[in-house]
Amino acid sequence: MSKADSGNPGGEHRLSRASVHRFSLYLRHAERLLQEGASKVSSSQLGEALGINDAQVRKDLAYLGNLGQPGIGYHIPDLITALRRCLGIDRPWPAVLVGAGNLARALLRYRGFQRQGFTFVALFDSDAKKVGQQLDGLMIYSPDKIPAVISQTGAELAVLAVPAPAAQAVADALVSAGIRGILNFAPTVLRLPPHVSLVSVDLAVQLEQLAFLVHLGQPEP
Amino acid sequence: MSKADSGNPGGEHRLSRASVHRFSLYLRHAERLLQEGASKVSSSQLGEALGINDAQVRKDLAYLGNLGQPGIGYHIPDLITALRRCLGIDRPWPAVLVGAGNLARALLRYRGFQRQGFTFVALFDSDAKKVGQQLDGLMIYSPDKIPAVISQTGAELAVLAVPAPAAQAVADALVSAGIRGILNFAPTVLRLPPHVSLVSVDLAVQLEQLAFLVHLGQPEP
Repeated sequence: MSKADSGNPGGEHRLSRASVHRFSLYLRHAERLLQEGASKVSSSQLGEALGINDAQVRKDLAYLGNLGQPGIGYHIPDLITALRRCLGIDRPWPAVLVGAGNLARALLRYRGFQRQGFTFVALFDSDAKKVGQQLDGLMIYSPDKIPAVISQTGAELAVLAVPAPAAQAVADALVSAGIRGILNFAPTVLRLPPHVSLVSVDLAVQLEQLAFLVHLGQPEP
Repeated sequence: MSKADSGNPGGEHRLSRASVHRFSLYLRHAERLLQEGASKVSSSQLGEALGINDAQVRKDLAYLGNLGQPGIGYHIPDLITALRRCLGIDRPWPAVLVGAGNLARALLRYRGFQRQGFTFVALFDSDAKKVGQQLDGLMIYSPDKIPAVISQTGAELAVLAVPAPAAQAVADALVSAGIRGILNFAPTVLRLPPHVSLVSVDLAVQLEQLAFLVHLGQPEP
């Protein structure tokens, strides 16, 4: 569903989407350990906590440079810094949120975003009753303000939480305004130019996958 | 992040997670075409609409049996029936939703679930102020009612929309009560017994993946 990695400047430094996903999990776990007061973690502890095999963890973390010390493990603050740099989240990412409904409320209050440097700087909604109101301290603008607001705020990412029929037109407007990546929750396939990255999360597809796994587990009648 | 397919009764009928994901997309698109009044669709039309190559579409759909007619394509209602049967959603799936916050509101109002046969039959929340209230016509129960409510409603799937620290305890209670699959939105790794299926959606990980794709597209400074 999502665009393949493109424009990789490093050649040999190419990471698969699966690796990036694991790096996100390592980061989340390392941050939790640090909060709990730990200062070191071994690859086997990481693997055990995340259900990833030891060899894979060591291989992944080797990609970050010479971080681990034999018999001691990884210094957690260094590991976090290296993972954040690798993931490109060692700097803030201003983002806009399009669609000021229930999903938007949930996303705005989802603490994980803020903690990882993702800051919502503006909201858009086509409902005239919402335009001009605030949600969690953020102004809701009409979609025709997309170019002006994106230019003013320097937003680079956009989260689409609009109904499927509206999604492509909104995406086109965001792309024209200079947005570089879209996280799409609308249950539809978006067409974006190659320089814009896309990650799609279709909630019904996730639930279908779960039903299918459960269905497979059933003996045939 | 999610458990591999387990207990596959068909042997040769094993489908990868990626195939199941594509089947969900075919289904969504076929349903849309039917709504728009179409009765036939070709593999190349499906592939073009979804950004999947023609050969892959034909290979996937061949798995459903002899559905396509050369030069004509697929009869859409038959295709929908076969896809729904294959995905295990040719019957209703009663589900419970744990955590009655903003994400729960968004999920309850997300029409895609209802359309695919997923019906929320009860809500749980540990907030005493919410217990006994209704949300979208559904009663909110205390989590200590999980065994009784799941037994009464016959719910098979559960959606977890609770904070990370609460997730494992809730999952354990759901598993003890007989739930067979969990869709987890809490940003944490859940440990489940092998007979229970898991699909996890970590929203911050999705946004990190997007930031990483955009980051990769940047020339190194």
